[in-house]
Amino acid sequence: MIILDGKKTSNDIKNEITEVVQEMKTRGEKVPHLAAVIVGNDGASLTYVGSKVRACERVGFESTMVRMPNTTSETELLREIKKLNDNPEIDGFIVQLPLPKQIDTQKVLMAVDPDKDVDGFHPTNFGRMALDMSTFIPATPFGILELMDRYNVDTQGKHTVVIGRSHIVGRPMSILMGRKGFPGNSTVTLTHSHTKNITQITSQADIIITALGVPGFLKAEMVKDDVVVIDVGITRVPDESRERGYYITGDVDFENVSKKASHITPVPGGVGPMTIAMLLKNTLLARERHLAANR
Amino acid sequence: MIILDGKKTSNDIKNEITEVVQEMKTRGEKVPHLAAVIVGNDGASLTYVGSKVRACERVGFESTMVRMPNTTSETELLREIKKLNDNPEIDGFIVQLPLPKQIDTQKVLMAVDPDKDVDGFHPTNFGRMALDMSTFIPATPFGILELMDRYNVDTQGKHTVVIGRSHIVGRPMSILMGRKGFPGNSTVTLTHSHTKNITQITSQADIIITALGVPGFLKAEMVKDDVVVIDVGITRVPDESRERGYYITGDVDFENVSKKASHITPVPGGVGPMTIAMLLKNTLLARERHLAANR
Repeated sequence: MIILDGKKTSNDIKNEITEVVQEMKTRGEKVPHLAAVIVGNDGASLTYVGSKVRACERVGFESTMVRMPNTTSETELLREIKKLNDNPEIDGFIVQLPLPKQIDTQKVLMAVDPDKDVDGFHPTNFGRMALDMSTFIPATPFGILELMDRYNVDTQGKHTVVIGRSHIVGRPMSILMGRKGFPGNSTVTLTHSHTKNITQITSQADIIITALGVPGFLKAEMVKDDVVVIDVGITRVPDESRERGYYITGDVDFENVSKKASHITPVPGGVGPMTIAMLLKNTLLARERHLAANR
Repeated sequence: MIILDGKKTSNDIKNEITEVVQEMKTRGEKVPHLAAVIVGNDGASLTYVGSKVRACERVGFESTMVRMPNTTSETELLREIKKLNDNPEIDGFIVQLPLPKQIDTQKVLMAVDPDKDVDGFHPTNFGRMALDMSTFIPATPFGILELMDRYNVDTQGKHTVVIGRSHIVGRPMSILMGRKGFPGNSTVTLTHSHTKNITQITSQADIIITALGVPGFLKAEMVKDDVVVIDVGITRVPDESRERGYYITGDVDFENVSKKASHITPVPGGVGPMTIAMLLKNTLLARERHLAANR
């Protein structure tokens, strides 16, 4: 059984990006610049954005954090987004979700210039992905592909079962695994809350990608031998014995499923750390595309 | 066994659209206007575009056919598309495929204003579809949904197997059948050329949508009792005994599969006739949206 080590892999990727940035500096080029917009004071959101800014520093990117108060109106946020779209110094930016209730999230995501949409949430980028065109793949699915790629997980002709149809993980994963190329060319089944006989389906799977947010959902009796298991579920379980007051767990009964699996991601330390690494990779890609477009 | 009669259903839809157009005229409103661009002299393409223009006339739409020579350059075609984008008289338009080799099809489809893209081929519209936003659904998938809707085919919690991952049928169908709502909420498996054990998969399906173009591919021993079968494969088989010199057949061994099926589409007369009806429906939708936007 092989552990798909997201912590190590994301570090490898960050080191590779650092090298590329060094070369850019040596050539006298402008380095990639990521901006993050955060509205309000949500603790988890501030933590996430903080990690993204620190990751930028680590690889040598420039970064800008735009903080706006919880009372920000939709118009004010759209104006800020327009400024970022128009600012040639910024290669890519993200708008941290969730947004306060007075703001229409869909409208905001639609306002981001697709060429700077390093989260890959704009419909144009999502459509480009589904139509096999070059695009920004959302960071979590992109991270899963990268993990599979680096560990040479064979996907072609395999039966991949995706659990959960969210816009940011399940739906894009189901599309990506069935595309031509590698990783891809899987027969893909997308399951969700209306799926009957989930065990019948998972027990046929060569690869299972679960993004449900239900701790311990996937049990050993639901999988066949030598299955590849990617656990995208992240749940904080309250635990007073820990300093933080909680621990992090995934959708998979790791102890028992890992005994049957050929490859498995741990939680924490699997898909999670890959996400920020892939956001950096998308930002680098945005920089390279802008450079190519201006040549 | 119920035949999903696309010919009758498409006629019903055309009659409904005719009524709506009559009401528009009564109110003194501009009627929907579809334009079709055709480059070159391909016989099949001319036939298709001709049918689309005639269908417009039948329901009371205005239509414009833009014919360009086979030697048209990409720049010339893009200029024509810009004119159609900018022309407020045109509600929607299509560019008939295939295009001559000197023209980059992707570039052309990307140039169509998504608000006038009644074929639903623009990545922005495809992405909107995948993200459950309002959009133009490509005509063939839209026609399949409409047929299922009108015949009350139950899709929720059913296992739908889609055969073929083309951008215009298989991929969008796989997304649409798994979306929230009706028809939708299916567990969806997308199969393709790399799929192993296709019979094992189809024999578990409650609904099979096949878009392969291989005559007689789906046989009775590959399906279970009471399956719903949607046949999108259309192949012209040469036959000198017929006046046209060919006959049309689908992917399904209709004679034998129909004995096990609860619902099945014939070929011809199933999905085919629905496609033009849904193109009209998208054009009507475009007109209504433009009207709403200008109010």
